[in-house]
Amino acid sequence: MSGNTYGRLFTLTTFGESHGEALGAIIDGCPPGLTLSAADLQLDLDRRKPGTSKHTTQRREADEVKILSGLFEGKTTGTPIGLLIENTDQRSKDYANIADTYRPSHADYGYDQKYGFRDYRGGGRSSARETAMRVAAGAIAKKYLYEQFGVTIQGYLSQLGPIKLAYKDPSAIPTNVFFCADVDKLDELDAYMTELRRQQDSVGAAVSVVATGMVPGWGEPIFDRLDAEIAHAMMSINAVKGVEIGDGFAVVSQKGTEHRDEMSVEGFLSNHSGGVLGGISTGQDLLVTIALKPTSSITTPGRSINRQGENIEVVTKGRHDPCVGIRAVPIAEAMLALVLMDHCLRHRAQNAGVQPPLPPIPGRVAD
Amino acid sequence: MSGNTYGRLFTLTTFGESHGEALGAIIDGCPPGLTLSAADLQLDLDRRKPGTSKHTTQRREADEVKILSGLFEGKTTGTPIGLLIENTDQRSKDYANIADTYRPSHADYGYDQKYGFRDYRGGGRSSARETAMRVAAGAIAKKYLYEQFGVTIQGYLSQLGPIKLAYKDPSAIPTNVFFCADVDKLDELDAYMTELRRQQDSVGAAVSVVATGMVPGWGEPIFDRLDAEIAHAMMSINAVKGVEIGDGFAVVSQKGTEHRDEMSVEGFLSNHSGGVLGGISTGQDLLVTIALKPTSSITTPGRSINRQGENIEVVTKGRHDPCVGIRAVPIAEAMLALVLMDHCLRHRAQNAGVQPPLPPIPGRVAD
Amino acid sequence: MSGNTYGRLFTLTTFGESHGEALGAIIDGCPPGLTLSAADLQLDLDRRKPGTSKHTTQRREADEVKILSGLFEGKTTGTPIGLLIENTDQRSKDYANIADTYRPSHADYGYDQKYGFRDYRGGGRSSARETAMRVAAGAIAKKYLYEQFGVTIQGYLSQLGPIKLAYKDPSAIPTNVFFCADVDKLDELDAYMTELRRQQDSVGAAVSVVATGMVPGWGEPIFDRLDAEIAHAMMSINAVKGVEIGDGFAVVSQKGTEHRDEMSVEGFLSNHSGGVLGGISTGQDLLVTIALKPTSSITTPGRSINRQGENIEVVTKGRHDPCVGIRAVPIAEAMLALVLMDHCLRHRAQNAGVQPPLPPIPGRVAD
Amino acid sequence: MSGNTYGRLFTLTTFGESHGEALGAIIDGCPPGLTLSAADLQLDLDRRKPGTSKHTTQRREADEVKILSGLFEGKTTGTPIGLLIENTDQRSKDYANIADTYRPSHADYGYDQKYGFRDYRGGGRSSARETAMRVAAGAIAKKYLYEQFGVTIQGYLSQLGPIKLAYKDPSAIPTNVFFCADVDKLDELDAYMTELRRQQDSVGAAVSVVATGMVPGWGEPIFDRLDAEIAHAMMSINAVKGVEIGDGFAVVSQKGTEHRDEMSVEGFLSNHSGGVLGGISTGQDLLVTIALKPTSSITTPGRSINRQGENIEVVTKGRHDPCVGIRAVPIAEAMLALVLMDHCLRHRAQNAGVQPPLPPIPGRVAD
Repeated sequence: MSGNTYGRLFTLTTFGESHGEALGAIIDGCPPGLTLSAADLQLDLDRRKPGTSKHTTQRREADEVKILSGLFEGKTTGTPIGLLIENTDQRSKDYANIADTYRPSHADYGYDQKYGFRDYRGGGRSSARETAMRVAAGAIAKKYLYEQFGVTIQGYLSQLGPIKLAYKDPSAIPTNVFFCADVDKLDELDAYMTELRRQQDSVGAAVSVVATGMVPGWGEPIFDRLDAEIAHAMMSINAVKGVEIGDGFAVVSQKGTEHRDEMSVEGFLSNHSGGVLGGISTGQDLLVTIALKPTSSITTPGRSINRQGENIEVVTKGRHDPCVGIRAVPIAEAMLALVLMDHCLRHRAQNAGVQPPLPPIPGRVAD
Repeated sequence: MSGNTYGRLFTLTTFGESHGEALGAIIDGCPPGLTLSAADLQLDLDRRKPGTSKHTTQRREADEVKILSGLFEGKTTGTPIGLLIENTDQRSKDYANIADTYRPSHADYGYDQKYGFRDYRGGGRSSARETAMRVAAGAIAKKYLYEQFGVTIQGYLSQLGPIKLAYKDPSAIPTNVFFCADVDKLDELDAYMTELRRQQDSVGAAVSVVATGMVPGWGEPIFDRLDAEIAHAMMSINAVKGVEIGDGFAVVSQKGTEHRDEMSVEGFLSNHSGGVLGGISTGQDLLVTIALKPTSSITTPGRSINRQGENIEVVTKGRHDPCVGIRAVPIAEAMLALVLMDHCLRHRAQNAGVQPPLPPIPGRVAD
Repeated sequence: MSGNTYGRLFTLTTFGESHGEALGAIIDGCPPGLTLSAADLQLDLDRRKPGTSKHTTQRREADEVKILSGLFEGKTTGTPIGLLIENTDQRSKDYANIADTYRPSHADYGYDQKYGFRDYRGGGRSSARETAMRVAAGAIAKKYLYEQFGVTIQGYLSQLGPIKLAYKDPSAIPTNVFFCADVDKLDELDAYMTELRRQQDSVGAAVSVVATGMVPGWGEPIFDRLDAEIAHAMMSINAVKGVEIGDGFAVVSQKGTEHRDEMSVEGFLSNHSGGVLGGISTGQDLLVTIALKPTSSITTPGRSINRQGENIEVVTKGRHDPCVGIRAVPIAEAMLALVLMDHCLRHRAQNAGVQPPLPPIPGRVAD
Repeated sequence: MSGNTYGRLFTLTTFGESHGEALGAIIDGCPPGLTLSAADLQLDLDRRKPGTSKHTTQRREADEVKILSGLFEGKTTGTPIGLLIENTDQRSKDYANIADTYRPSHADYGYDQKYGFRDYRGGGRSSARETAMRVAAGAIAKKYLYEQFGVTIQGYLSQLGPIKLAYKDPSAIPTNVFFCADVDKLDELDAYMTELRRQQDSVGAAVSVVATGMVPGWGEPIFDRLDAEIAHAMMSINAVKGVEIGDGFAVVSQKGTEHRDEMSVEGFLSNHSGGVLGGISTGQDLLVTIALKPTSSITTPGRSINRQGENIEVVTKGRHDPCVGIRAVPIAEAMLALVLMDHCLRHRAQNAGVQPPLPPIPGRVAD
């Protein structure tokens, strides 16, 4: 398969281009009996959808999702769930000028090298518009994980350009357009973004995701380690250039005595590992951070080449997010949910009925 | 499958525990006609094997690999390649004392929660001993990639604890036990490691891998992006807590004007992206960096619990690497080789005969 | 994944229930550059669609397919192809009476045992209505196989109840509602079916499929043998209870001297093997035959049980095919096309550029 | 992957050629806690092994299996099980004469067309010698299925050439070299085989397998139907040309009133379906029959071609089974066990905790 399916037991397969007629997805492997409606998906779709603030792309898409199959009398049946979102606000003519152009740091050149040609309208399949379907599928996974296990997944913006954002007040995250838990920084963020737009530039960001209420024992040894699959899922999000679990790159300069998470019968005494050891969840909170590059679609001219092999100057028009990291928050949550969903099913398949020698110790580190 | 197979078209499946009778692997999907012998694999195995320096574990393993199938008259036949390495220097009695103990920051606790019990001898399946088979398989992939496409893969230690190591002189890498390209720092490394052993502590490290001679067009859109699969492969290496492609986490504070790799008909003008855009290789050098945590097996006592649910103090004996990052260099090379091997075959399947509109531009950034 | 995806490199994932809002599919892995439009798919869909003759179900469905993605300027782009068919003639109220009933020889009882409940309207996901999407996807595969390799795939009804039908005149197949190549038997078929309907009974059938212009070397050894995957694909069609390759069950009483296909430089001298040896195509015509059971939806009362665990008498109403074998002809063609499509890509991945020691010998046996 | 792995959750990957150094396998996904030793596997290996009667090949192989990993203190750990059987009685020089020859109805020609060359010694990878590993893996699956669910799997020879063999007395199967349950026919079989050898010919056979104690609800809708995967698994056995579930090809001439399996609260009233409806097990006995072609390795000369593209006459020497169907009995059992094992895990993943509306009705039809 050419890469449009995620998961082994709970699979998401998506289709659709930025300026095509519709986006769609099939979710296969959802257990039967889950109460579900389109409204459950819409909540997260609305968090991701464009045009909700002056700091994101001005493309207007309702991103209204329809569930076409897999439900009966309000419950999942165990058969595939078909999803559809119709595109409504394509402006393909904006892109006619890039048909022959390779925009720097876009997928354009690689696609042409791979396929010989490409649907250039809005980036075609390489556009982050495709992530709407991930968010929809992630919402199903989130609901299952919460209802079956009490696992909750919360993402937030942890850095925007030079501005570091603490995980101070999770309850504030839904109340601002930055998915920011550090309310004291909201004005600084707003000012920074306003200035950025004025400069016709874009900026990178870091997004963190936390899963709490984790179950120990999820994940597989060796290649399908839980953290390996999280890294895969996160790096598959557009613009992501780095993934960290727990302390991430800080471990490079840590010593063993400092890094190791000691344990007691009252629980773990620290969480440097980020909730995974040997590829398997420990029950500690899962801590994941990703780095997102500044969007390459900026109106400041840049050097490039065209399909005719000539040097050219490029100015990327269209409607774009000056910081793609912001809207990546619900996408990162969705991807983590998909990984956990797959692994809770995989765990169940092989280890149903296994009795661990002692009950799980608490996974949250006391503040 | 429970996680012991890597790849879609060029698959590696491994078995074996640290203190079991043998390690083994099956490589399925190697194209026919590749000249191959055990010696080709042994070269990399010898780079990874323990006991080659005072700074690594003193376990002595010849790690001599046998090829049991898939070759005929010195060439691969296209049928599966069976590999076997017999363990010779197990000292399982060293581990009897940890049978009931959960060593902090080891896989012990998670394994017991998952499976109900575990093979505790030397960490069983969770030991990095398993990576010998990855190195063996990676050597096959490397050979193919080089002979068919001219792609070369080179890893090096880029940081050890606080000591940053530049990619100054790649030719120096095979000449020192640290896989270090920064020869001026060798004495400092040696002194640091000696002091670390004296402190009975361990330390983290960063390893970088570069693939040169890259072919544009490898990788798939969406979930099987080349960088996503690299992240997966790298994070599946024991002790890895972070993965970066190109500039990695540095992108968080970069602006679009700074980050984007401009192009000209003479080639790319920079390589912030690390050779992948939209999940597809650009032909630029692939740049990957990983963070490895300090090994948790240290002789400084630590708090933990046992299978009986009691608080205990743990001292981890046995023979261990004070910096697992060092020996991870050939492992990281192998994993990158496995990813590229899989994707060169996947690319060929779907895009054989595709004519890109212009020949690839040079991928190396001039110094 | 729970079973709704077929293929490894050219994958078809489907969704939809008999009486749901729509049927849909995603085809992933179609090579770029194939000229394609909905009309290419509609042709085969029209051959399968219900209500075209008095001998099939009277449900009226236009089965009009939309291609929602994966095309640009009339060519496939290499990205996923999304398909949609809206259901228009559901009469779910016909099925209210079976909500609590297990119809004999239907999937009802097994679904309830598996999932705890089921979408009973028209059989839900177990209905053969789902095969519309297979036919649509098969049409794409057929087009590619023909344009790239000259492979053609032709199915026909080879037996209906007691009436054996020879492969006399393939050109006659599209000219009659029975997909019959044995024109002398058309009146007999018509009379038999008329009498069958009068008896309120149903009957089994055999369908054969022939692929000509075959390429030698497709298929994989051991588990993914070409014939094994054909058997899988064919047995996945509703109502199929047997699959034969070449002489099939006749081989049981054959001797080696009789069965073996001798060869000469002019070509194969017979085709008992049906075009596959050791799981790999020989270039001979592929010969596949399947047995389809009589539909279980008949109006003659039968004994069964209900969800309350009581003995009951069942009469299956609704609109059904008295011989499901007839409409299975385009479905069987589609499934063979999907298998071959997947294997031509798999072959290319691993064996691109392989030079066989001699050019293929002719695969068709002279009459 | 190029076809050497079977299964999704309980996977078997094999390597090894007829005249290579060893056969090996990795079983991934075996649940932890199963009591297991090599002796459990040896039992079935001894039933399959060559040289046990004058009616099978005279090659002498002990087929002694070693378990190299995945066990700890006599129980499976949930990590991969590595298996090894060393070849001891290769006589590769017997095969030097076929290096350039395409034996009729062997894999020789297809392999050369696919791979460009082949390991011709004893058929290399295409030899049925590889099935030893399937039998070993199947023994693990059988043990698990029996211990967890009470499912038993029994194969028998149901036809040899013209001699039909009834399922009269299953207890007689282990007592004769033909795996025959029809003891009155043993002398006839012996005489037939003796005459066959005298004629230097070979003959086809049918093998049937029955699984009793079945659990309803195993299998998946659409492509991964239980019967579809059984067909796949069975057709992947060397020499198989047909597969039937339940009444198989007899359904072609059956009417609906005759075929349908009526039900009552006391159980199913017949078993024409062979235990699967809509791709999902009903709890009825699973009934599978396969057709095996006469071995093509006979000493009667035949026409063929060589690698130089010349017409030649071939006489196949070496040591061969005149009726490969006989030794296929334990192989067919093993493949059915592998399918069921995979599906019991798959079922558990998605449907754990599902409560069917009524307890299963009896699956065995009273005699």
